[in-house]
Amino acid sequence: MSEVDLEAAFAGKTALVTGGLGFIGSHVARRLVRLGARVRVIDALVPDCGGNPFNLHDVRERVEVKVADLRDAEALDPLLAGSAHVFNLAGQVSHVDSMTRPLDDLENNARAQLCLLEACRRRAPEARVVFTSTRQVYGRPRYLPLDEAHPCEASDVNGAHKRAAEQYHRVYAAAYGLTSVVLRLTNTYGPGQLVKHPRQGFIGWFVRLAAEGKTIEVMGDGEQRRDLNHVDDVATALLLAAASPQTGNGTYNLGGTPPVSLRELAALLVELSPGASWRLVPFPTDRARIDVGDAFASYAAIQRDLGWEPRIGLREGLAETLRFYRQNLDRYR
Amino acid sequence: MSEVDLEAAFAGKTALVTGGLGFIGSHVARRLVRLGARVRVIDALVPDCGGNPFNLHDVRERVEVKVADLRDAEALDPLLAGSAHVFNLAGQVSHVDSMTRPLDDLENNARAQLCLLEACRRRAPEARVVFTSTRQVYGRPRYLPLDEAHPCEASDVNGAHKRAAEQYHRVYAAAYGLTSVVLRLTNTYGPGQLVKHPRQGFIGWFVRLAAEGKTIEVMGDGEQRRDLNHVDDVATALLLAAASPQTGNGTYNLGGTPPVSLRELAALLVELSPGASWRLVPFPTDRARIDVGDAFASYAAIQRDLGWEPRIGLREGLAETLRFYRQNLDRYR
Repeated sequence: MSEVDLEAAFAGKTALVTGGLGFIGSHVARRLVRLGARVRVIDALVPDCGGNPFNLHDVRERVEVKVADLRDAEALDPLLAGSAHVFNLAGQVSHVDSMTRPLDDLENNARAQLCLLEACRRRAPEARVVFTSTRQVYGRPRYLPLDEAHPCEASDVNGAHKRAAEQYHRVYAAAYGLTSVVLRLTNTYGPGQLVKHPRQGFIGWFVRLAAEGKTIEVMGDGEQRRDLNHVDDVATALLLAAASPQTGNGTYNLGGTPPVSLRELAALLVELSPGASWRLVPFPTDRARIDVGDAFASYAAIQRDLGWEPRIGLREGLAETLRFYRQNLDRYR
Repeated sequence: MSEVDLEAAFAGKTALVTGGLGFIGSHVARRLVRLGARVRVIDALVPDCGGNPFNLHDVRERVEVKVADLRDAEALDPLLAGSAHVFNLAGQVSHVDSMTRPLDDLENNARAQLCLLEACRRRAPEARVVFTSTRQVYGRPRYLPLDEAHPCEASDVNGAHKRAAEQYHRVYAAAYGLTSVVLRLTNTYGPGQLVKHPRQGFIGWFVRLAAEGKTIEVMGDGEQRRDLNHVDDVATALLLAAASPQTGNGTYNLGGTPPVSLRELAALLVELSPGASWRLVPFPTDRARIDVGDAFASYAAIQRDLGWEPRIGLREGLAETLRFYRQNLDRYR
């Protein structure tokens, strides 16, 4: 995929993954283990945020795991000392929850990030930090696909905080010499995602219902289009961003498959899941308030600079994901 | 200045001014009193933030003042009940302090704003909220003058939080039906400003030194250009924004005088202040890190929509301000 030799970049290096028991963080941690890095994970296991020790069960003995909050300097500082790389994935990702509990979102997505950067300043001033932001910082799209120049006008509290955290990373890089790369993720799916409740986005919930052979409820007319990334492609993007000097302090969209409508996605999941079905239901008020309509992103910039592009097709990726949840649903319910 | 009849807009109405013992807030509160409004003020008197009871001494008996923090729902909720207007000026305004105490800035500029909006949602869902933001949300200018379409890439923590608070106001307006107008202020000066220390921007500190007949130290080469607004002009802009239905959920720059360099400004203050002098000094590291170079804003949008423009010339405004501080410096030192 790229000229970058990831093994040379990470073998023997120490890397800290925040939110490393979570969905994407655990995939990054596992990849780093395989690349020969010394991997440290910090995860607060905040209820409903997606952290799940099962996500790292296969590499558990090769990862140093600390269950603690980024706001806890005593726990965080020793993990940062000697870390060349920080993959900063900790956060609260539910847009719905950010509206019902905005102050919790502030703690997990703003204060925690400031605490991490303060700790980097103290203990790892040379670190390269890759921060995972979200397409939601753009708010309701003014044009599609979204590119990095699109104005950031968040349509929910979560988007406002993720944008603030992006800016913290920029400010600390400019003021104190850290390197920080911001990746704005689109909808990510794959093994290890939280599927306990539907508040972290539609995809995990759809996958669970399909794996259980139940009925997927698609809100509205189902014509809203989205792009999706398999988590393995996302993990590759994070590793490339960390390893490539030319990303220094850049901001990049990820972007996924050709956009699909939610009804197309539901139909595909049903096709892959004997017994499952789908139907349309009206939009609940709390979601209608913050829904952004069609939303998908251009990954032209990261393709140009890092050679990254999504490799895993939607049908293949969903089939693998459904197999995973059919086998492991008890670990995620 | 405008077609808007401010007396008709505010007479008999209840208005809450947050940060109402502060520099700009106290001017707004006084104007509201004169316009016949029932004025409530909440101010936490956070040390170094600019709140000063002397700022309202002349209208103290006609204003209901509550010394409390926006994060204190028990204090805030009763003040919001029945308030048709909220002038939301509470905040921490020092960019330097936001870098040395980022978590305090988070509390005062982000959490406090979320708490205010949550309280509005509970107790004043129909209120019109005018939020004072700052030109600093733009960060280092890519072009000048700054207009509202300029990207927001804050160069310090304060700018990131002020931008987050702007977005909260937008999100709550869209989700819950409040009206919120955001004004992005440029450098404001005038009677009542904090002049105790130099960390709230250069202008108050320069004025104090001039009023004391001391030496103004201009950092760098003094060629950095800024625009300035007299506080009376700023208060007028806030009142117009609150009173004018056509501002619904808009964002407007204020912008001031034709830009002047800091050395020109220092020279003018010295000219108006017998005994004072000025000289150049090197930039301290903590300021160089977050300095944005030339910065001034276009007020074309608010002029077009509300007929607002700055009325008080720099020489006239500074002369009045210097007179004020010569008489009242003991109250602000």
